[in-house]
Amino acid sequence: MAEEVVLLDYWPSPFGTRARIALAEKGISYIHKFEDLSNKSHLLMKMNPVHQRVPVLIHKGKSICESDIIIQYIDEVWNHSFPLLPCDPYQRAKAMFLVDFIDKKVHESSVKVWMGEAEEQENGKKELIEWSKFLEGELGDKLYFGEDTFGFVDIALVPFYNWFIVFKTFANFNIIETECPKLMMWGDRCLNRDSVFKSLPTSDQVYQAYLEFQKGWTHD
Amino acid sequence: MAEEVVLLDYWPSPFGTRARIALAEKGISYIHKFEDLSNKSHLLMKMNPVHQRVPVLIHKGKSICESDIIIQYIDEVWNHSFPLLPCDPYQRAKAMFLVDFIDKKVHESSVKVWMGEAEEQENGKKELIEWSKFLEGELGDKLYFGEDTFGFVDIALVPFYNWFIVFKTFANFNIIETECPKLMMWGDRCLNRDSVFKSLPTSDQVYQAYLEFQKGWTHD
Repeated sequence: MAEEVVLLDYWPSPFGTRARIALAEKGISYIHKFEDLSNKSHLLMKMNPVHQRVPVLIHKGKSICESDIIIQYIDEVWNHSFPLLPCDPYQRAKAMFLVDFIDKKVHESSVKVWMGEAEEQENGKKELIEWSKFLEGELGDKLYFGEDTFGFVDIALVPFYNWFIVFKTFANFNIIETECPKLMMWGDRCLNRDSVFKSLPTSDQVYQAYLEFQKGWTHD
Repeated sequence: MAEEVVLLDYWPSPFGTRARIALAEKGISYIHKFEDLSNKSHLLMKMNPVHQRVPVLIHKGKSICESDIIIQYIDEVWNHSFPLLPCDPYQRAKAMFLVDFIDKKVHESSVKVWMGEAEEQENGKKELIEWSKFLEGELGDKLYFGEDTFGFVDIALVPFYNWFIVFKTFANFNIIETECPKLMMWGDRCLNRDSVFKSLPTSDQVYQAYLEFQKGWTHD
């Protein structure tokens, strides 16, 4: 009980997906509790009173919120294997910068493509191509963003790579196949990892969640 | 030259102030370069091409961007004295969460109070009171957010505490004196530190910067 690990989650969430991948990479057993976002649990409200959103990791009865902080916490507590963040201060700073970039730029532009009106959606698409090219440059010829080992930046980005696949399937918007071949190969490489494959929602699940959100937002 | 430390900065910036305080706490000598934000330098554009904003720390010729990442980098590289972040993973995660909260909530609501139209400004004021009460609860009876030693959260928050003083002086909006006495005492305690006192812009300087921004924004 004392060491119990609980994850409050919502399956299609890209941020929840990050926490799942990090836990899987470290081989941590946990109790997985899924939230109904239209009727959030008392536990979620209690454990994340500020933002009231998933994911929340509960460890030894204490909550850790925000997916990038959850990944770092997991890496520091279960530090016996598979380090997710680099040790070198400059490489750590660079990884943190890229994750912050993904949160601020890639996420916001992706939401524009999902939810925006015509002009905003077009702007979102242009921005996503620009951000993808930047990330392709950062990746270079490496296997993963952290050199040869899968880690922090890969975990943070791959749920959005999954969104790109959904855009291609459902919105006929192909971001990276032609523009960013290295990023596409990186994405496929990530999808072949067990930790990623088992944690990612399918394109259908993401699209269904989008339709549900859209319905909810229309009703607001 | 190899170990040279340079800070690209703008004196009234709360984010630049954070970097200055962290460098002062560690006793690091550096070259201080101030930016004219209406005519940014080539060096700034080269060192922070994504966001093109201050602060940027340049160490051994490499750039570190975003103030919270800069503080962590400084703490990791100059780790011989005055740790700024806690070692315990849970306390680290909590500190990171609070700094993220300050960036997202306190900063955004403060900007509403600065720049918003009447209704938005009133909303910003209400929000700031709510956030201040939350932070007062997190501080509790401790001297600083990180128990008895000045650190990461204090450095991140004190530039905004300085804004609260400006609001009181120039906008007759007194956020915390009556509502949050412990937070006020914390602020005064921080202002008495050499690292903070020497790094903070004066109320007059902040207000002048606000007027300049407002002029610029009105012309847009």
